[in-house]
Formats: sequence, C-alpha cells, structure tokens
Amino acid sequence: MDFRTDLALERCEFLGKKNIEGVRMETTSSENAKITRISIENSKGADALGKPVGNYTTVEVKPFAGRSFFIDESFVALKKEIAAIIPEKGSVLVAGLGNLKITPDSLGPKCASMIFATRHITGELLKVTGFSNLRSVTAFSTGVLGETGAESAEVIKGLANVVKPDFIITVDALAARSTERLGTTVQMCNTGIVPGSGVGNSRQMINEKTVGVPVISIGIPTVVDAATLIYDYAGIDVERKELPEKAKAMMVTPREVDLMIERAAKLTSLAINCALQSEISPEDMLALTS
Amino acid sequence: MDFRTDLALERCEFLGKKNIEGVRMETTSSENAKITRISIENSKGADALGKPVGNYTTVEVKPFAGRSFFIDESFVALKKEIAAIIPEKGSVLVAGLGNLKITPDSLGPKCASMIFATRHITGELLKVTGFSNLRSVTAFSTGVLGETGAESAEVIKGLANVVKPDFIITVDALAARSTERLGTTVQMCNTGIVPGSGVGNSRQMINEKTVGVPVISIGIPTVVDAATLIYDYAGIDVERKELPEKAKAMMVTPREVDLMIERAAKLTSLAINCALQSEISPEDMLALTS
Amino acid sequence: MDFRTDLALERCEFLGKKNIEGVRMETTSSENAKITRISIENSKGADALGKPVGNYTTVEVKPFAGRSFFIDESFVALKKEIAAIIPEKGSVLVAGLGNLKITPDSLGPKCASMIFATRHITGELLKVTGFSNLRSVTAFSTGVLGETGAESAEVIKGLANVVKPDFIITVDALAARSTERLGTTVQMCNTGIVPGSGVGNSRQMINEKTVGVPVISIGIPTVVDAATLIYDYAGIDVERKELPEKAKAMMVTPREVDLMIERAAKLTSLAINCALQSEISPEDMLALTS
Amino acid sequence: MDFRTDLALERCEFLGKKNIEGVRMETTSSENAKITRISIENSKGADALGKPVGNYTTVEVKPFAGRSFFIDESFVALKKEIAAIIPEKGSVLVAGLGNLKITPDSLGPKCASMIFATRHITGELLKVTGFSNLRSVTAFSTGVLGETGAESAEVIKGLANVVKPDFIITVDALAARSTERLGTTVQMCNTGIVPGSGVGNSRQMINEKTVGVPVISIGIPTVVDAATLIYDYAGIDVERKELPEKAKAMMVTPREVDLMIERAAKLTSLAINCALQSEISPEDMLALTS
Repeated sequence: MDFRTDLALERCEFLGKKNIEGVRMETTSSENAKITRISIENSKGADALGKPVGNYTTVEVKPFAGRSFFIDESFVALKKEIAAIIPEKGSVLVAGLGNLKITPDSLGPKCASMIFATRHITGELLKVTGFSNLRSVTAFSTGVLGETGAESAEVIKGLANVVKPDFIITVDALAARSTERLGTTVQMCNTGIVPGSGVGNSRQMINEKTVGVPVISIGIPTVVDAATLIYDYAGIDVERKELPEKAKAMMVTPREVDLMIERAAKLTSLAINCALQSEISPEDMLALTS
Repeated sequence: MDFRTDLALERCEFLGKKNIEGVRMETTSSENAKITRISIENSKGADALGKPVGNYTTVEVKPFAGRSFFIDESFVALKKEIAAIIPEKGSVLVAGLGNLKITPDSLGPKCASMIFATRHITGELLKVTGFSNLRSVTAFSTGVLGETGAESAEVIKGLANVVKPDFIITVDALAARSTERLGTTVQMCNTGIVPGSGVGNSRQMINEKTVGVPVISIGIPTVVDAATLIYDYAGIDVERKELPEKAKAMMVTPREVDLMIERAAKLTSLAINCALQSEISPEDMLALTS
Repeated sequence: MDFRTDLALERCEFLGKKNIEGVRMETTSSENAKITRISIENSKGADALGKPVGNYTTVEVKPFAGRSFFIDESFVALKKEIAAIIPEKGSVLVAGLGNLKITPDSLGPKCASMIFATRHITGELLKVTGFSNLRSVTAFSTGVLGETGAESAEVIKGLANVVKPDFIITVDALAARSTERLGTTVQMCNTGIVPGSGVGNSRQMINEKTVGVPVISIGIPTVVDAATLIYDYAGIDVERKELPEKAKAMMVTPREVDLMIERAAKLTSLAINCALQSEISPEDMLALTS
Repeated sequence: MDFRTDLALERCEFLGKKNIEGVRMETTSSENAKITRISIENSKGADALGKPVGNYTTVEVKPFAGRSFFIDESFVALKKEIAAIIPEKGSVLVAGLGNLKITPDSLGPKCASMIFATRHITGELLKVTGFSNLRSVTAFSTGVLGETGAESAEVIKGLANVVKPDFIITVDALAARSTERLGTTVQMCNTGIVPGSGVGNSRQMINEKTVGVPVISIGIPTVVDAATLIYDYAGIDVERKELPEKAKAMMVTPREVDLMIERAAKLTSLAINCALQSEISPEDMLALTS
C-alpha cells in the first residue's frame, strides 16, 4: 500500500474486495450524510488495513467550504455518531492536536478552542448556569514538538494525571488519498492515534495503553500528499523516493483551505459539544460557545 | 503551452531553446542569488512567451521558509534589482493584490501592510523624523472582487485618481510550474498585471494603459497548480479538463506555506521600502516598519 | 462641554434640560431595545449639541459581550432603524473606518469584512444565486493615515469616483462618556463623519459635501477617554491638560473588549446587510456571510 | 492599601518611607534602564508590602510601543537581570499565563510562543544544529480556566510531572498603579505567582510549594485598574465598591496596547531565550525564533 491515507475507509476501498478477512463494514446513506462503520475484528483485519483492532466510523457530509446552514441533517448525523462512539457517561479531556500556524494542520487546536469546557463549573457557578447536569469537560491544545519541546502524548499524559478524565477525545487533521474527501469526511475511532498519522509527525502513540484511559480519535482529512495525487491521477506507479526532495514536502489542499478548516472546526466542535452535553440543544450550544 | 506559470523564466525554460526570437535573456549568479533578466523585445517574443513586451527580472534566493538572517546578500541583490526596475524618482502607490484569508494568496496584502507609507509625512512631521528627503509612498490592499464587489484594477484606478502617484508597484502571489521555485523566487516586471495571472482571478488588466501611470509588478510563486504537478512528475500529458471538478480546485503548496508567506512578505516589503527610500539603511527601515 | 463623546444622546443628557432649542428628541422603549431619535433642526440646535444639523438615532441593546442568541428582538430593532435612515433604493459603498490592529478601533474594518458585497453579482452569476433583485453593494476598509499615507476621506472619494454609489455608509468605533454605553449602543446619523470623531483621528470630513453623495454613519462606542472617566466618577473638574502626557494616551475599555468588538461587528454587519437586502432573511444572510 | 498593583516597587513607593522594616531596596540607573532590586527579608517586610518573602527585580526600560532598535542596552540590562535571578544550570519549563484573546492579558501566551524550545533537540538533531550545549527548555501556554476547565497551576503541575524541569519560569501580564509604567517595566521575582495577581484571576498559587520546583515569575504591567486611575488622578478616596458594576469591569490601557504587547512579548521572550542559552548571541537567537 504505497499511498498515504489516514482513513480506514480508503484503505478498504484500495483493497477493492467486498470481503476482507477480519474486517466488517456496513454503510447507510441518507441525502445529507453517508455513514460507514468499519470494524477491525482481529489481527488479520489489522494487518490487511494497517490499522489497530477497533471501530472506525466515517461520516461523509456536504463540503464544509460551501456556504450552508449549520445545524442541518449532516450535523445531526455527525453528532449522533460521535455520541455512539464515546462513553455514555464520565468526564472527558478533549485534546486538539496539530500546529495552529500551519493552516491544514490547525483543525485540532481550532476545534479545542471552541470546546465548551465545564470542569470548573460546579457549586454556585453551576446553579447560575441553570444546567442540572453538565458533564465535566477539559479542553486543551497540545501544541507541537518543535514549538513546545514536548510530545503531544506527553502533554496529554501530564494533563490526564492532574485532571483525571474517564476518557480522552483527540481531534486532528488527517491525510486522505482522494481530493474528493477533503473537507467532506469525518472519521472517528476508538483506537487512539498511532505513529505517523495526521498531517504532522506525532511520533508517540496516544491510546489507552499509553495514557491509561480510553482514547476516541476524531479527524478530518485536510490534505492529500503530493505523491498520492500524482499516483492517483496519473494512474502510474510513482515511487515516493523518486520525487525530488522539494516535492516530498508538498501538500495538496483545496484553494479554500482556510475557509474549509474554519467550517470544519466549527461543525466538529459543535458536534462534540452536543454529543457530550445531551441536555443542551445545538442552538443553545452555539450561543454558548461562539 | 498547457501548464500554468506566471514566471517568464519558466516559460523560457519550457521552450527549451537557447535563442527565442524577440527575447533576450541574461543570467548572473552569485552564492546567494541567481539573477535572470529577460527582455521581451517585440510581438514575436511576446507570442512565444505568452507575455507582454517588457522587462522581467527574476531573483532566485535562498528558501524563505528556512530560518536565516534577514539582511543578507540575497536581500541586497533583491533590493538592487527592485531599485533598478522602478523609476529613480517620483511618488508611488504600492498595491497589495490577493486575498488575505487564503494563505498562499495573502502575499500581496501582507506585504502592503508592511510598506512604509510616507505620503502624509510632510512639513513639521517630516522635520520630526529627521529625514531630509522621503519619497512619497501610499500603500493599500485592493481586496478581492468576491469580498469587495470591486475589481483590483478599479480600486487602483480610484486611489490613483486621488493620490496621483507617478508610478504604481503591485505585489501579488504567483503560480509556478516547478515546486522548486515556491518561496525561492521573486519576479519583477514593468508590464503590469495581465488577466488570469496570480493565484486568484484578477480579470481586468492593471498596466499603464488602464491606470495611466507605469506599473511595476512584483510577485513570488507560492503555489503550483495540481494539474501542473501531475503533468510534471508523471511526465505524461494530463489534460486539465479530464481532471475531476474537485481536483481543479486544488493547489499544491509547501507544508510550511504559512511560514514561507510570512518570510516572503517581510523580505519583499523591506526590499521595496529600501529601494524606494535610498536614504534609510535596511536596519533602520526594519525598525521603522516592524 | 469639556468631556468627550461621539453620541448625540449623551450630549443631550449632559445639557440636562428637557427642551433644547432646535433639537427634537423622542424615545421609545421595549424590553430588548431603547430607541432615541434626535433631530437637530437648525444651527441653534447644532451649536447646542456641537454636531451638524441632521438626524441621529440611537439603539440601545443588550450588551454585545454577553453570550446570547443573535437574531433576536434587539437585532430586529437595529435592522429596522438602519432601514429607516438609509435611502430605500440605490447602490451603496460601505466603508469601514479605523485601525484593524488596535482592538477598540477595529469595529469598522471588521464590519466591512462581513458586508455582503454584491456589485459584481450580475447577469449569469445573479441567476445562479436565485435572488431576483440584489441591491448593488461595495464594501471596503479605508485603512488609517499612518499605515496607508491616505486619509479615509480620500480613499472613499477615490473609490466613489469609480464605483459611483448612490450613497455611502460608514462604520466606525466611537467614544462615549459613560462606560455603561460601551458595547450596548448603536448610533446612526445622516450627517456623515466630522473631524475629531471616532477613536482615531480622522481629520477630513466625510459627508455629502466632500464625497458628493449622502453619507450615513453608523457607530458603536467602544472606549471612554481616561480623562472623561476621571471626571465622571470623581465628580470634579479635571482639565485634560493637567493630566500627565501618558494619561492622555490612555483609553478605558471593558475587560472583554476583544469579544465585545467581535460581537458588535457581527451584529452590525448583519443588520446592515439585512437592511440593504430586504429580500433575504437574517438566517439566510448569516449563512451567506459567515 | 486600597489600590491595585502587582509591582513590589509601586508598593514600596506607596508606603513612601525610605526604610521599611524587613525590606531592602537598591537602585542603579543608566541611560537606558533603571534597575531596582527589592528584597523582602522576613514576614514583617512581607506584611508591609503584601507580598511573599523573596527577591523582586524591576527593570524600567524605554517604552515598548515606540519604534526603536531591538537589541540595545535596555535589552542587555533585561537579559542580565533575568540571567541573575534564574538558576545557572538545569532544565526549565517556561509557562505563559493569561488569555490570548484579551489583548492586555495576552503577554504570557505570546511570549511562550516565541520561546526557543529545545528539550527535543538531542542526539543527531543536536549535532545538526551545531550547538554544543543547549539548556533543555519546554515552552507552554497554560490557557485560562474559563476556556480549558483547568487552573493554570494544574496545567503546570501536570506538565512538570512529565517534563520534570529543574525550575519553572512563568510569564504574565500585570496590573500597575501608574499609567506611566505600562509598557516600560519588567518585574521578575523568585516567589512565583500568588492569588489575585495578573490581569485575569489565577486563583491557585504557582510556587515551589505547589509545583515542587523553584518558580521564577516575569511580568510586565499592561493595564491599570479603572478605580486606581480615578483614585490616582482625582486624588480622592474612591472606594471600589461605590463604582458602578460596569466600571469595575473596566481597564485602562495605552491606545497602542496591541503594538505594546507585541513588542513586550518579543523583547521579553528574546531576553529569556538569551538568558537561558548563554552560548547563543541575541542576533542568532532572533533569527532562530522569528
């Protein structure tokens, strides 16, 4: 598998066969969202897809960059799938991964900054809000190794030690194989983040083994690797190592990538916020967080 | 010529022959900058290169995204070439073209915001500064049609009517054929901006004919068109119209495009500022504008 | 009148009497908005209030910095008053005044960037939108003299020469006397902008006389002058000239001024957009411009 | 002491006497910097100044908002004093406190983003840099309680657990009594951060007791409390509780606060970076971090 994608769905498509041993796949479609649930059931499936055993849900929605209403059926579908993959109860640490200064890698930090943090809303402060039952949420951007000197995994471990969440949600920008998926696809899984994923180079795993509590990862593809694009459209086998040094450092993004990221971060954070706080309507949540 | 580039230099390279009728080309190299001066002398040359008659100078410097000192030999070479292509005297309107909200298209507005505007520094205010002889400079970002409702050419015409500059400098992001040139090349020419150039789609010409005074255009390539990338690396003839709708809207940029634009805007604006105000040293200019 | 305010309403309050010769004043209140319409009818009124003859409407709404729903009764009241003070038909140039880099002075440019520009939406492009009858709108930020070398009035004149609007709307940050009004009050008038108004120092008038078409000015107070604050709370006569140099350069803002400006710009631009395009609902307009 | 200041120096001035029991004070002046070293030696001194026992150094420099050269004598004085108050050796965690979205409170996060993080630069990566002996530095912004759900003290504790620094440097915006000090004064102390300090409301102490390693705090006043301004200029006793609700939420800043913060963050981060890495010249450090 010589192209780069973080989407389990695209790995299945590449293999091209209906039945992959150790992998179950199920698709439901509506006008506004196509949902694919992939379950990697054992090591055979994991080897075939190059991803850990676990559940991967993909929600394909209308393009984020287009002008459209916010709280629509796409949103409802996305919120529902997030609600289904996270624990029903318990406190959470939402961690935004990636580099705020590199536009296509900024999804995580942008999302984290719009998460409705509630861990400090207790006692009198809670009474004032009028909510009866807020789930405890902590939100943080981990920064990137080159700017902080600490791995995202370390930052999450450090915060989890103090905040003691029941589970963790990470949000990150992903790479896709197909330009068609940029800004239209949300993947969520219960296996955490593995090395080499994402736009940047997170090198340490972030999963239950490394941080001690379950890790749900939510990601949106924002770039296609230049080599992958050439492979895909030229229809020939371009070996990555033959591309000039400079081309390897290239990424392919939609022309409207800044707008796309803005929309994607808004939609994803709102869906996470609503999935976490079932008591609050999307409209109220939007007002609370914008 | 079925690929996209705004660089006269790349068009010459594509034609591949040493001598193109109606075109003169001359290259000088030093350790820190390679300078190519292309002169399109008549309509034969213009037809061959698909660009108007005039002078095109390209300064290739060290990559902008790398960490390096600012006021180095690359800078000196760049400043010198800008000084050579602009009128020696006279007031100027510097217009930044492009969309501040689309990172690779934001070079123009970012540059314009760092231009040392002096038109209002006269009389007592001039005395206070201690400068004896400031050239009159007005700086402006034209915005983009979709956001303002006015063409860049209209905005420049409108401002020129009131400000009455002796000449105009435009700054714009360009498209290149080769990813090697992104963030390493500055092109300047005395022919203004022609339709279809730049990252966006400026549709009206901006040149002496349309705005009434000479127009010097300075640009830096920040993107490669996705189709061009495929063509170049795959070595086959990919017709643009065969690419899926979505791919046409894709652009290829360096991973560090945000940092590259930041550096390029700083370097270019400083070079323009110093070329315009020969009395002020680069170090003083940097202090005045940052 | 030794304190600083740009609000006609505060000038009336300061005079303290019910009836000022040459001034008519009328107030209507609802739960969500208090509306005061002041009409300066002749030079006696103009002298008394220190403002030109014309109409000044003030809409006092709920604080912008608080978290709240957007399209509420305050919004409806604001939109209605803007619709009442602008010409019913005709093309418009919306100009944002002020300095984007100084938070409390950034209302104008932030607002301008959210105006729905339509001047270029004609012919086929209009058909695609599905709107039958869009008013022609051009939107622009004038920048500030120190950064552009051109007066806001000059920039507006230059653009108006080319765009030829039937009228102009300016948006600007104002100074108030009372901290209570910051982020809660919108003033609109049909007299344009006069010297010394606003947070910055626009020195040239922007009105029908200087730019050739009617000028509607919309502003929101975002700062109180430090001297005014001392005067008001200390209840003594502090002469400005006795304050140390440094204090004169001080401004008083709410702690949440960044959030307040963000909200105020969103609300004001939406109200202007809806007042200009009566065909489009606020919800649709919000989707079109965000 | 009914006014608000975070500067030990202003507390001494307020007491007005030459000799305060338990407090030693020593001033040295040069053309470009005035340095005051205050030592609170025992609980009597601590009670008198309302601050913990420890050392407080204040460096008063030329205003940050003015246009001026960067690496000047003020800078050298500042770097020297920081070098003197931090441990000579050992790894460090630099934590920026405050809210990036509130301009006068953004000093900490802006500074942290310009700190030269080196903890990950080891082995081969270190060889490539050419430096022989980099001090291990981790840099982080703690965020604010309302946005993250976690106290700054908690975040620092969590990170320190993982990163295990030998000491911590915090950077924070302060409140001053006098507007004259805004943007001209840097205070550093070895006592950490105490409740109620800073522009925001950090409620938990950050000091050796709470985080386990020495804490050096560096701060710059960026605001004056509105009540303090009134008190100071009006010369009368304005009790805070008599000010209307709205006025209590007001802050007084220089008109050019955005520019001032930008400059202050650059200068302070460069001084910290150079104090930490004695091997690297200021010019090289500037190139490495901008």
